[in-house]
Amino acid sequence: MTTDIFENKKAPYICTPLTGKTKVEVLDQLEKILPQTPDLIEWRADFLTDLADVELVLALVAEIKNTTDIPLLFTIRAAHEGGEEISLTEDEKVHLISEVCRKTKVDFVDYETSNEEKFVKAIRSVSKENGKQLILSYHNFTFTPDNEEIVKRAKLAEQHGADIAKFAVMPKTQEDVLRLLEVTKTIDDLLDVPVVTMSMGDIGGLSRIVGWAYGSIITFGVGVELSAPGQIPVKKLRETIKLTQELVPSWE
Amino acid sequence: MTTDIFENKKAPYICTPLTGKTKVEVLDQLEKILPQTPDLIEWRADFLTDLADVELVLALVAEIKNTTDIPLLFTIRAAHEGGEEISLTEDEKVHLISEVCRKTKVDFVDYETSNEEKFVKAIRSVSKENGKQLILSYHNFTFTPDNEEIVKRAKLAEQHGADIAKFAVMPKTQEDVLRLLEVTKTIDDLLDVPVVTMSMGDIGGLSRIVGWAYGSIITFGVGVELSAPGQIPVKKLRETIKLTQELVPSWE
Repeated sequence: MTTDIFENKKAPYICTPLTGKTKVEVLDQLEKILPQTPDLIEWRADFLTDLADVELVLALVAEIKNTTDIPLLFTIRAAHEGGEEISLTEDEKVHLISEVCRKTKVDFVDYETSNEEKFVKAIRSVSKENGKQLILSYHNFTFTPDNEEIVKRAKLAEQHGADIAKFAVMPKTQEDVLRLLEVTKTIDDLLDVPVVTMSMGDIGGLSRIVGWAYGSIITFGVGVELSAPGQIPVKKLRETIKLTQELVPSWE
Repeated sequence: MTTDIFENKKAPYICTPLTGKTKVEVLDQLEKILPQTPDLIEWRADFLTDLADVELVLALVAEIKNTTDIPLLFTIRAAHEGGEEISLTEDEKVHLISEVCRKTKVDFVDYETSNEEKFVKAIRSVSKENGKQLILSYHNFTFTPDNEEIVKRAKLAEQHGADIAKFAVMPKTQEDVLRLLEVTKTIDDLLDVPVVTMSMGDIGGLSRIVGWAYGSIITFGVGVELSAPGQIPVKKLRETIKLTQELVPSWE
């Protein structure tokens, strides 16, 4: 499964996060990551100190989109799924994401499937009305849920209208990493929408390199600063994936 | 599982085949592959036209061992498992492998588990008496047997006293490649001896790059000439595995 925003590029698409605390820091990171030509930029807005300032956020999204044609993903990662602590209530957060959908040229927004259903529905509705793709995500920084649980959550993401279903989970063992790869194949076969998965931490790095073979269409690489444990520098990540894919040219 | 012949090197060990038809061709290929520093050299003696000349074979093994310290694997691949047609009867073949065990410094010999049990036992016996390691192997150039079949054959290899159990199978689909990786983990957990597996052909290349993560300790790379479909040039294979392993430093 692929999404047409990436046009004819071959998956996996490399996504690099922006994690600045201020507008200046975000734009400074943007300048540094552009030469690394990621396929997707994720602005992890939960790192921004002044996240409550809606106009600042909208202006910053606009400035990023004016600076580059690289597709942009807007994310306020929930603290309960590994994001930064923010001062906004969930209502205010949903309002902010909605405003970003309505008033900017952002390409994707991310929201956690674990949030209250009314919020998930609101975000799905406003993103669809404004032609933005929605990544419905699940993060677990402690362990890798069993396959049944991951499949259940993947189906839920699709039921809620996800354009992409994302799973980032922590392995305790090498077996967990290999199992995450297998269940990626399971949910990719099961869903009509593309999936993105990763096993985090040191040993999880393997999933960032070979996840594409199991159906994961996006892999996250560090541009300037990690946004989750185990992320690999973009350049090394791209080089390794490119070499591997060149050696398996007929893989579709 | 590892074998001590490779000392402290990290798996996977890269094995490069020699496939010359004459002594001159074999030694010429050897000269060309040595600068590529494989961890293991496999002399696929079934390619040799004068395989019936026992003294020639013994002298050539001796010359290879005198030329390099890289461990040597001696293989007469059976035609029914993808080898070249040879003029020797199975009795003569077993005699030749036995002579190689007795009279040369070869490190490993390979024999197919599918051969008659009396021959497998004879090879196990003579190789053990002469301190040579035995790879008991299974090849399928048509398809990838189901997991149950592979597990059964792996147990059989161990029952016959294999020092290493090897499986080289052909995928029909990408799923077959991923399944071969999974069953590699299964048999590696099950057996007390190390395993070597590969999914052949174009799409199987993935297994040659990441098989180590599932427990396969040897991967075959082309030095001069392919000995099986889908083999990757040694340099690219090593570079890709090295990059991947550097990005997953804590994998054991």
